[in-house]
Amino acid sequence: MPEDKEKEYWVGFDLGGTKMLAAVFDSKFKQLGSERKKTKGHLGVEAGLERMIGTIRCALEEADIDDTQLRGIGVGCPGPLDLARGVILEAPNLGWENVPVKKTLEKEFGCPTVIANDVDTGVFGEYRFGAGKNERCVLGIFPGTGVGGGCVYEGRIFRGKTMSCMEIGHMQLLADGPRSGTGQAGSLEAIASRLAIAGQAAQAAFRGQAPYLRSQAGTDLSKIRSGVLAAAIENGDRVIKQIIVDAANHIGIALAGAIHLLAPDVVVLGGGLVEAMPELIVETVNKSVRKHLLPSFLDTFEVVAAELADDATIKGAAAWAEVEFRETDSKS
Amino acid sequence: MPEDKEKEYWVGFDLGGTKMLAAVFDSKFKQLGSERKKTKGHLGVEAGLERMIGTIRCALEEADIDDTQLRGIGVGCPGPLDLARGVILEAPNLGWENVPVKKTLEKEFGCPTVIANDVDTGVFGEYRFGAGKNERCVLGIFPGTGVGGGCVYEGRIFRGKTMSCMEIGHMQLLADGPRSGTGQAGSLEAIASRLAIAGQAAQAAFRGQAPYLRSQAGTDLSKIRSGVLAAAIENGDRVIKQIIVDAANHIGIALAGAIHLLAPDVVVLGGGLVEAMPELIVETVNKSVRKHLLPSFLDTFEVVAAELADDATIKGAAAWAEVEFRETDSKS
Repeated sequence: MPEDKEKEYWVGFDLGGTKMLAAVFDSKFKQLGSERKKTKGHLGVEAGLERMIGTIRCALEEADIDDTQLRGIGVGCPGPLDLARGVILEAPNLGWENVPVKKTLEKEFGCPTVIANDVDTGVFGEYRFGAGKNERCVLGIFPGTGVGGGCVYEGRIFRGKTMSCMEIGHMQLLADGPRSGTGQAGSLEAIASRLAIAGQAAQAAFRGQAPYLRSQAGTDLSKIRSGVLAAAIENGDRVIKQIIVDAANHIGIALAGAIHLLAPDVVVLGGGLVEAMPELIVETVNKSVRKHLLPSFLDTFEVVAAELADDATIKGAAAWAEVEFRETDSKS
Repeated sequence: MPEDKEKEYWVGFDLGGTKMLAAVFDSKFKQLGSERKKTKGHLGVEAGLERMIGTIRCALEEADIDDTQLRGIGVGCPGPLDLARGVILEAPNLGWENVPVKKTLEKEFGCPTVIANDVDTGVFGEYRFGAGKNERCVLGIFPGTGVGGGCVYEGRIFRGKTMSCMEIGHMQLLADGPRSGTGQAGSLEAIASRLAIAGQAAQAAFRGQAPYLRSQAGTDLSKIRSGVLAAAIENGDRVIKQIIVDAANHIGIALAGAIHLLAPDVVVLGGGLVEAMPELIVETVNKSVRKHLLPSFLDTFEVVAAELADDATIKGAAAWAEVEFRETDSKS
């Protein structure tokens, strides 16, 4: 198959709420070119798909790769998704519905395209290239606006029939606890997402308990990002540290439930909050989870920080496309 | 391979706390012979292994099958297990430790043997032959002395690296709830196992709130089994019904957590308690779980009662041996 031989390049794509990223990889997943654009969700679905195509075109140009050399495209998307049809059913942060990603990119670039949940592609990236390399079962937890989860089990993303799963952020911890935007009262993400943490931090700033944070970010939730939270801790805002520790303790409790079910070998914690203070969060989660486990599970896993940061999703998406389309090839 | 052709019979084995069961199946899993003996755990490991061998011998004799015709043996055991070595590390209900099941049976019968957690083999039985037939992802929950869980995902038992998992009974529901024997305060099995239910029912009988139950079983926990609980409900002990409904509601809450992670297609409820009152428990769990789920999960699964009763484990164990050893064959 001389024709197939040439088709050895992969595109990975990360469709985020504020930015989109495309990268071109060779068959050993060395990155040859990339491009980043603003997502501009408010412009609508058609404009969004056009921007996705344009972003990939730029990355291909930088890599000096032709459409005909593309073996496949993998796209990490916000959910919920129809995995089989390759459609984003709804992307609330973008205001998009029914986005035919697979069909659009396949038509444009003439190569097979797979979509997956962006947390799943991120965990797959850590499994293939990062903190969970080649482990049998990798569970990833990414506290952000919500608390995302994903699992790679025996080399494949664990999934529902038509959609992604591992919604660890929606595990219920407190029967009558606070509410998050989308989920149940007392769910993990209502307690431990970056948004929930920022909400508590803003209150502390308002009460005058976190003078450094107040001096840097005021009481505006949208300004209280991971970096300034980490700086506040370093500069003596002890209440902020306590808020983070409380959140990490709750992540540990939810994680214990997940470990009792899944018995992962590695638990990867990632996302901006973890990147800003990896030691504090990893250590606290690690201690907390072990308080809530059966003895037989205690020595079966490690908790580690993610290694690939923003590259996880994009590289994972490309590598996931390889898994999906290599297998399809071998079946045909 | 004419030699292989003849080796088309499977043995399934169920090692329980009070009884052990063996059955012989042909390649289409028609049962040709079976035997049941008391386990008599107090006699120790060696006597126990001898009894297991004897039970299998009786079943083979009834089936008129020779050792040389055996393709493989599958054994459902209480855990924790070392799956790779085929050893029961500990069986607290039997007082056994380090039981070399695989090695012993392979030596005796000259065919490959696999062990698995008994709940896992039960769920595998329901997946192959019963209430979850050929579904992509089947989650089983079996309330008994504890609350057992198991999952068959894409045709295989979901497992940990060396041990079984899906310990849904150890998911924590109440931060400061009651304790079960082995687990955390407030775990599902401390609230909703048959033992926890019997404990509450005995109190109700003691207080005079459950006159029928008291007349039939007194206040002795060991006499308050599933059948008499069902009879008490039929005979007007309303407090007993409420105790069961409360337990089923809590199963629903834990199940919601598991569904958010696993997105199963079918949830199978089984065990003696469910068999004694399938409608009440299935309906209550079904209502409860849907109160605690994200909308996108609501239409993705069914909750059903198990269909195979005691046959699930034994037939599932034999069928699991087929999966393990057919695959080994094709690799070699």
